[in-house]
Amino acid sequence: MPKATVEAPSNIAFIKYWGAKDLDEAIPAGPSLSMTLQRCASRTTAVFHEGEDGPDEVLVAHNTDDLAPAGDAFRRPIVRHLRRLCKWAGRHGRFQIATRNSFPSSAGLASSASGFAALTLAVLRAFGVAPDRATQSVLARQSGSGSAARSVMGGYVAWPEGDRHAARQVAPHDHWDLRDVIALVETAPKKVASRDGHRRANTSPFFEKRLSLLPERMKRAAAAIEAREFEALGEVIETDGVELHLITMSSVPPIFYWMPATLAVLEAVRELRAEGVPAYSTMDAGANVHVICEPHHEEQVARRLSRVDGVLEVIRDRVGPGPRTDVEPLL
Amino acid sequence: MPKATVEAPSNIAFIKYWGAKDLDEAIPAGPSLSMTLQRCASRTTAVFHEGEDGPDEVLVAHNTDDLAPAGDAFRRPIVRHLRRLCKWAGRHGRFQIATRNSFPSSAGLASSASGFAALTLAVLRAFGVAPDRATQSVLARQSGSGSAARSVMGGYVAWPEGDRHAARQVAPHDHWDLRDVIALVETAPKKVASRDGHRRANTSPFFEKRLSLLPERMKRAAAAIEAREFEALGEVIETDGVELHLITMSSVPPIFYWMPATLAVLEAVRELRAEGVPAYSTMDAGANVHVICEPHHEEQVARRLSRVDGVLEVIRDRVGPGPRTDVEPLL
Repeated sequence: MPKATVEAPSNIAFIKYWGAKDLDEAIPAGPSLSMTLQRCASRTTAVFHEGEDGPDEVLVAHNTDDLAPAGDAFRRPIVRHLRRLCKWAGRHGRFQIATRNSFPSSAGLASSASGFAALTLAVLRAFGVAPDRATQSVLARQSGSGSAARSVMGGYVAWPEGDRHAARQVAPHDHWDLRDVIALVETAPKKVASRDGHRRANTSPFFEKRLSLLPERMKRAAAAIEAREFEALGEVIETDGVELHLITMSSVPPIFYWMPATLAVLEAVRELRAEGVPAYSTMDAGANVHVICEPHHEEQVARRLSRVDGVLEVIRDRVGPGPRTDVEPLL
Repeated sequence: MPKATVEAPSNIAFIKYWGAKDLDEAIPAGPSLSMTLQRCASRTTAVFHEGEDGPDEVLVAHNTDDLAPAGDAFRRPIVRHLRRLCKWAGRHGRFQIATRNSFPSSAGLASSASGFAALTLAVLRAFGVAPDRATQSVLARQSGSGSAARSVMGGYVAWPEGDRHAARQVAPHDHWDLRDVIALVETAPKKVASRDGHRRANTSPFFEKRLSLLPERMKRAAAAIEAREFEALGEVIETDGVELHLITMSSVPPIFYWMPATLAVLEAVRELRAEGVPAYSTMDAGANVHVICEPHHEEQVARRLSRVDGVLEVIRDRVGPGPRTDVEPLL
């Protein structure tokens, strides 16, 4: 029975994907740029029962919990993606899927990015095919999780590039060791799903202007990464991270992802900078705050964030090399 | 000795003044609309020593404190305004000024609006002149406090109108009894003065778009006031109140006026609405939240806000008739 296991990391966007030309296939309205993480990851084992009919089986676990059958809302987009991949490969059969996330899911940490990247890559391996990275990225994106397009590769990743809206690595992880200190202020699923937020993006009167700013911002970020200019990159990160939320708060109806503790963390980061510690915050479509810094400041940043009122947990992650296959199967 | 006392109320803007064509004379970049309050007010007594030279004397008190000589930062713009008014009237002399605020000053409650409205009107009375309301508004605005232009009259006030950038009443206070329940979350002076914020407004990439939205928004607000359609007005209030902060947070460098408790109050207001209590929030350039509601919901709104974490005090105010002269002199 063809079986494969892949662990794919999450990523933190420095320039955010928000708003789509086609939401089902995640064709984005604008470009984005991210850093692939190392520790926050999804491990997925896919067993392919070729030729068999019957329902796909989907098991899921968070952290060290036991695997258990996934609920319907979790299972449905996975099954849809399995059918899409079968069609792409011209194969027929049913799957057993087991997936484990190393971080709280649906909490503004991009578990759908790592999850769909891992699923896509595990299924491709179970099929015994090895398309190029751009194709892997396109297939991951077609899950509907746009940022999955960026999680199929490591280091610093720009998306989209070219006709097929695939991601491309702009620098490998060992080009520049940056850290992501994550202040968790919320672990419950967010009230408005990213998908609904994307759909509402162009109701913001400011969305069009934002899109017009992104090409220049992409260039500045890529140049800062290439030259390893941390403060230049940090300014882009913080501007864009706030801007995503300016768009959500001016959408119709507005979406407020921030929580009180979110603002307290943003303030703590500004205080750190005032004290001479370069660190820059960003948030995905959620309340948690990612604080990007260089390795020699990580300890100090983590200590400070853990003291902020309302911070439940501090997770330390870093830029990573991307998906791995040298991992224990879950099935 | 000519002496006059005027009490002028603060106002809460439903559509905000932010950004100026001329900051010194407060010629605004866009239109604004406010409700003049009743309780939150400044009382000012002006004694005019005609023909005398020598420094102006400025005494100030908050709430029930004793009057005391004003510090330099408070005194300087007042003296500048006194000189401007003398020049306008073609008069010469020195002033004794005493002013008392009924609410915490410099905390995002517009004490400069009420203060400069009261000062302007008291000085005009001490001069023994009675220019029309548009001229009163222009003179108050020239203090540099734009919203003072709206505080020289009561009820619902639009600004600017016409060539002289004066305010105009769109409806008197007895047209519609609305309440303003103010959740104080901060009483310290804000870190970035409004004046610096105004100056930075056009560094926001979204400022121009905001300006383009205002004429239509002014019409919708005026129509809702005329028809007493509370929910239609409320949507304008809440959209515009957030938008001011989207502009500050996207200015270069960004300004974050919100505090954690600000977000908690905004959330409480959304919860109230979900429970069927129409109430809408707005914030000036500060962390405090004004919650606008109809009289029969005021009690419930005040009770809820007082229970929100981080709310120091709840102040209840309402639409008022504007400046009064039937008040006790301070000198």
